[in-house]
Amino acid sequence: MSHLKPIRVGLLGFGVVGSGTWNVLARNAEEIARRAGRQIEIVRIATRTPSKAIDVVGDQISVDNDLHALVNDPSIDIVIELIGGTTLARELVLTAINNGKHVITANKALLAIHGNEIFKLASDKHVMVAFEAAVAGGIPIIKAIREGLTANRIQWVAGIINGTTNFILTEMREKGLPFADVLKQAQSLGYAEADPTFDIEGVDAAHKLTLLASIAFGIPVQFDKVYVEGISHLAPEDIEAADRLNYRIKLLGLAIRRETGLELRVHPCLVPKHKLIASVEGVMNAVMVKGDAVQETLYYGAGAGSEPTASAVVADLVDVTRLHTADPEHRVPHLAFQADALADYTIFPIDDIISSYYLRLSVEDRPGVMAEIATVLAKENISINAMIQDPKEDYASIIFLIHQAKEGSVLQAIKQIEQLSFVRSKVTMIRMEHLL
Amino acid sequence: MSHLKPIRVGLLGFGVVGSGTWNVLARNAEEIARRAGRQIEIVRIATRTPSKAIDVVGDQISVDNDLHALVNDPSIDIVIELIGGTTLARELVLTAINNGKHVITANKALLAIHGNEIFKLASDKHVMVAFEAAVAGGIPIIKAIREGLTANRIQWVAGIINGTTNFILTEMREKGLPFADVLKQAQSLGYAEADPTFDIEGVDAAHKLTLLASIAFGIPVQFDKVYVEGISHLAPEDIEAADRLNYRIKLLGLAIRRETGLELRVHPCLVPKHKLIASVEGVMNAVMVKGDAVQETLYYGAGAGSEPTASAVVADLVDVTRLHTADPEHRVPHLAFQADALADYTIFPIDDIISSYYLRLSVEDRPGVMAEIATVLAKENISINAMIQDPKEDYASIIFLIHQAKEGSVLQAIKQIEQLSFVRSKVTMIRMEHLL
Repeated sequence: MSHLKPIRVGLLGFGVVGSGTWNVLARNAEEIARRAGRQIEIVRIATRTPSKAIDVVGDQISVDNDLHALVNDPSIDIVIELIGGTTLARELVLTAINNGKHVITANKALLAIHGNEIFKLASDKHVMVAFEAAVAGGIPIIKAIREGLTANRIQWVAGIINGTTNFILTEMREKGLPFADVLKQAQSLGYAEADPTFDIEGVDAAHKLTLLASIAFGIPVQFDKVYVEGISHLAPEDIEAADRLNYRIKLLGLAIRRETGLELRVHPCLVPKHKLIASVEGVMNAVMVKGDAVQETLYYGAGAGSEPTASAVVADLVDVTRLHTADPEHRVPHLAFQADALADYTIFPIDDIISSYYLRLSVEDRPGVMAEIATVLAKENISINAMIQDPKEDYASIIFLIHQAKEGSVLQAIKQIEQLSFVRSKVTMIRMEHLL
Repeated sequence: MSHLKPIRVGLLGFGVVGSGTWNVLARNAEEIARRAGRQIEIVRIATRTPSKAIDVVGDQISVDNDLHALVNDPSIDIVIELIGGTTLARELVLTAINNGKHVITANKALLAIHGNEIFKLASDKHVMVAFEAAVAGGIPIIKAIREGLTANRIQWVAGIINGTTNFILTEMREKGLPFADVLKQAQSLGYAEADPTFDIEGVDAAHKLTLLASIAFGIPVQFDKVYVEGISHLAPEDIEAADRLNYRIKLLGLAIRRETGLELRVHPCLVPKHKLIASVEGVMNAVMVKGDAVQETLYYGAGAGSEPTASAVVADLVDVTRLHTADPEHRVPHLAFQADALADYTIFPIDDIISSYYLRLSVEDRPGVMAEIATVLAKENISINAMIQDPKEDYASIIFLIHQAKEGSVLQAIKQIEQLSFVRSKVTMIRMEHLL
């Protein structure tokens, strides 16, 4: 196998994932070459603080801070982009592609926002852009959907694709603590950033969902059409109530095929406890995919971290190494479907989605309250699955479970309920997904 | 994309999976072509009872019972082998390969036993043999290990890879029924064959484990070296005791890398309840893979059935369609590692494996019993993790949990314990795996 000359790789960025990629390639060089049929060598690194990289890689290869020089280096076959961000990263990736280099990236924000431009240029230039590491870390979920489930009309994808929020929800439930306390703890453990907005408000999950939806349904990336809601408004009493009702609250990314279009949404959900995904705890990730032939499948693993993410980067390296000599027409398409066969499905605004709902509110503890609320719901054609009343000292907490309603109608009903004289709180609304 | 001419496929066998493959390809033809970049057409079917196939496919394509004519038909690019068995299937597959055709098969027994011969010929003839459907039905586990985890030195694989036995164990636990009763029920539901030996004695799981171990470690298929033990000896009281100890009993296929060799074994195991795989119930399958970079991952889905298995067959069709024009040197190797880079690891006989153990026996209910047994174990250098005594009417049931011992020593100790005067039963021994 050794007659093939080594593939030459340039690495942009040497942070957590960059150093992990170096370490995995170095440690498992022999095992990886036995698979790939040739050596894969990082020959050049460009990073903002070269000294840190030099401490790890020594002086056998070129390390500097000239990111542009790397993507213009004619001796490099594959560029790995691990610097993050969407401005400089976009510029570097486009330059690399223009120079005929294959690109591997873990940058979900970049692809969710600029993916259509990047994939178009890559097709024109006959190069590959691989992004297994951009979604769910080490779990080979891109490959599973794009290549493992090609027989299927995908019905839905549902994923725990942000470890930070799953860690926070797990801790809130296990320790009965409020959101703010657990967030602080997550920050001190390094599971949440100093500015945690992207994670806790669901934006990171929405970037990843954008990519999953593209490869599941064969649509262009459309980040701006994803409904996004985070977990910062969740109260311990909702998590506890869910538990009593035999549900767990999880932040899910959901891409659902309906008869006349798609739903793309990220928000907290009540998920039945008996579903495997409800038992995915802490920083772990899991993605469920339901196809019309295969039915329900699930993929589980570490969604972040140095070597788990590097595992995905290196898997892409091996793939590109194998496929780069194939004629472009026979490679796996970037978005799972041929570039000229992407679909233009309607993506529903949030008012038009169909879901089940958990509603919680505080009311005066007097007769007739349940009946009046039920009347409002009935007027909006919403049928109630269950009503649970929990009397407190000087008020009552009521929970309604609503089965399969249009969100617009539920929001209308909530508006009216909040105006009833005996209602003493805003209505907390959490969607429920049964994943059938 | 439509300038590429259709790929021509011949189908051997039209049973559960064959008809499923036809149905999925027909129903999702457009979606599949959007992915593959061309049409995939079944143009010929050979099956023992053509009339059944004709009822489904009509008269637009050639259907007869001449299996040999199909593999010799020069107009066919890819042969799908779904007839099962290891004699005629071997002959047909070898002929197809000799004729330069790519082969897709769901036949785990064929590959576990004759894989080395088949893959060798395929390499010589520059054709692909794809077998995603041979392990865990619709779960793309072959692809995940072979392509998704290429960065890793795989540490172990542990799978629930036989739905029949998992269904039986689930029912035994949920309903407290003995093995024989549940087996009958499984047979009437069609989850177990009239002759269930292959499933319940672990042979089917061992075929699949043989393939998983090959692609995980890069070794030739070595079915004869797999230790195989089924579930027919399991008693309801063991399942119940496991439950009280916070374990579930599962039939696992295990392929474990040790410093100086490999363990390949199929047998019932106590698995900690908090592990996701312990919650995989009924006929569902799941495979855990631990790699040194990615750490623990899990893949879950339907392990059998018409369309779930067809999902894997068709995924292979799309893969072969994409890759068949690539130069053979750059295709994904059959066993994940290059054919000239397979390893010759020692595979340990069962006496040399390391595991934890659950031992249950009946003894006279008198003082000193525990001490004497503990002395026997100590002499064999076996340390006890826990002892639980459960007094019955005129005897006592004792359970010992043993942490990390060599199986040979445990078997020696059991022999001695069974000779102690106060011991009134054989010792039931079940291995425990903590999957760390």
